[in-house]
Amino acid sequence: MTDILQTISSNKHFEGTLTKYKFKSAALGGLDAKFNLFLPANAANTKVPVLFYLAGLECTEDNGAQKGGFMRDAASEGIALIFPDTSPRGAGIEGEDNDWDFGTGAGFYLNATNAKYSRHYNMFTHVTMELPQIIEAAGLPIDFKRQSIFGHSMGGHGALTLYLASLSNTKQYRSASAFSPVCNATRAPWGKKAFEGYLMSGVEEAKGVYDATDLIAKTKEPVHILIDYGTVDPFLDQLHPEDFLKAARDAGHDEVQVRVRSQEGYNHSYFFISTFAPDHIHFHANFLKA
Amino acid sequence: MTDILQTISSNKHFEGTLTKYKFKSAALGGLDAKFNLFLPANAANTKVPVLFYLAGLECTEDNGAQKGGFMRDAASEGIALIFPDTSPRGAGIEGEDNDWDFGTGAGFYLNATNAKYSRHYNMFTHVTMELPQIIEAAGLPIDFKRQSIFGHSMGGHGALTLYLASLSNTKQYRSASAFSPVCNATRAPWGKKAFEGYLMSGVEEAKGVYDATDLIAKTKEPVHILIDYGTVDPFLDQLHPEDFLKAARDAGHDEVQVRVRSQEGYNHSYFFISTFAPDHIHFHANFLKA
Repeated sequence: MTDILQTISSNKHFEGTLTKYKFKSAALGGLDAKFNLFLPANAANTKVPVLFYLAGLECTEDNGAQKGGFMRDAASEGIALIFPDTSPRGAGIEGEDNDWDFGTGAGFYLNATNAKYSRHYNMFTHVTMELPQIIEAAGLPIDFKRQSIFGHSMGGHGALTLYLASLSNTKQYRSASAFSPVCNATRAPWGKKAFEGYLMSGVEEAKGVYDATDLIAKTKEPVHILIDYGTVDPFLDQLHPEDFLKAARDAGHDEVQVRVRSQEGYNHSYFFISTFAPDHIHFHANFLKA
Repeated sequence: MTDILQTISSNKHFEGTLTKYKFKSAALGGLDAKFNLFLPANAANTKVPVLFYLAGLECTEDNGAQKGGFMRDAASEGIALIFPDTSPRGAGIEGEDNDWDFGTGAGFYLNATNAKYSRHYNMFTHVTMELPQIIEAAGLPIDFKRQSIFGHSMGGHGALTLYLASLSNTKQYRSASAFSPVCNATRAPWGKKAFEGYLMSGVEEAKGVYDATDLIAKTKEPVHILIDYGTVDPFLDQLHPEDFLKAARDAGHDEVQVRVRSQEGYNHSYFFISTFAPDHIHFHANFLKA
């Protein structure tokens, strides 16, 4: 069954293997989709838990895999990592390559309802359903009953919203964390632009669905969330971590359930991410290996 | 005095700072030269020892800084890292951009004697003299009495040759290590091409000067060398680690002085390098902090 997935490259890394795969994605309208998968060495003997990493605007499946600094601790914890792309590529929609913060490289981890985008821009389904199904069908040794999710910036928005949305139904993820996430996307210029473009009813349609602050405000279940952001992040006006934190506390989630850490002097880069990468991996390991 | 160096970018990283600088390089014929410098947090209070990282063909000052995975351990050991570029850029010499393994991105850490290249292609002087002098003149808190050097591929050749060449005179470096180094450059196609191009008398001129195996064979002083290479490295025919090892043992350097490790299943990539990065940093720390 492994011929569902075509191997593009494979590299031994921290005693495990990082492999880049390609497949025809139904969720993305039949386009080729790529992702990176890190399997730790212990996956040779047993199914391992998995952590999804969602990258930010303009990124691909490679940024986190090459610059995140995640694999050293994932290898020692025995956790797999999946790095999806950030959008469909080559859909051929007019204007999709014009902006760095919309279209290609900017899928926002939603399912588009605007007819212009709805065939291809379905990163929500791609990440939550299609990737687990196709990886399982390919017979790779991952235990999808133990999933967690994290991400950066737009991908932090993705990680928080996918996690929180799943709590009231599938409970797909055990924990979520984020570096410099877009916490209140319906208030952020990047989010507004995405929602106005991808969704038939624009920002209104996103409220309560694709906004982490809206979601945490109405979440009753206990949560496991860690957020780090830098105090000199040049995109701080897009992030609103204080909104998320207030909504979480107002909804009764204490500092054990929701930790939001302000990191002095750090910015929005992978130099920031890799500094706190070990903390995030070990945070998720607590739940993935429980 | 810090205006000798122009700051291009600066990122907080593992509590320290990674800064990219630019300056007019006399050694490189007056061209702009760039380098990355990582200063650990303790450099705020004291001068710190320093480790040079020399990158391989086609790389710049960024590859090791972004993908090497060196800073986490350098930060905890309190060691600075300097990442030079791999050649002069924009010298305007006919043909210098035609090949990926010669000219731009392929300076081979030598001083050219062929008149066509001798004004600009002087990476030996750039790394061993110019960078320490200019960084010291800029008042940055580095103790150049405690230097070591490491590198990858062509940069592994550079690290080994610069270290060994210095032992009989300046003793500039305390230790050397390398990932997949070109160990016997006068026998390797990459090395031969470089020497025939940059040196007036070609490969003959390089023997005993720019060849790590020649150098270790005549080295009487005790040495501190660590080499890692992967068993599935696609460029293994360029590297000749077995030549270097034999020459080292024949010259009386035992496994404490020269360790050459074959790493099963690893290739030539930064996924290989970052896996063994912690070992190399701690190896050098033994000598830099002695």
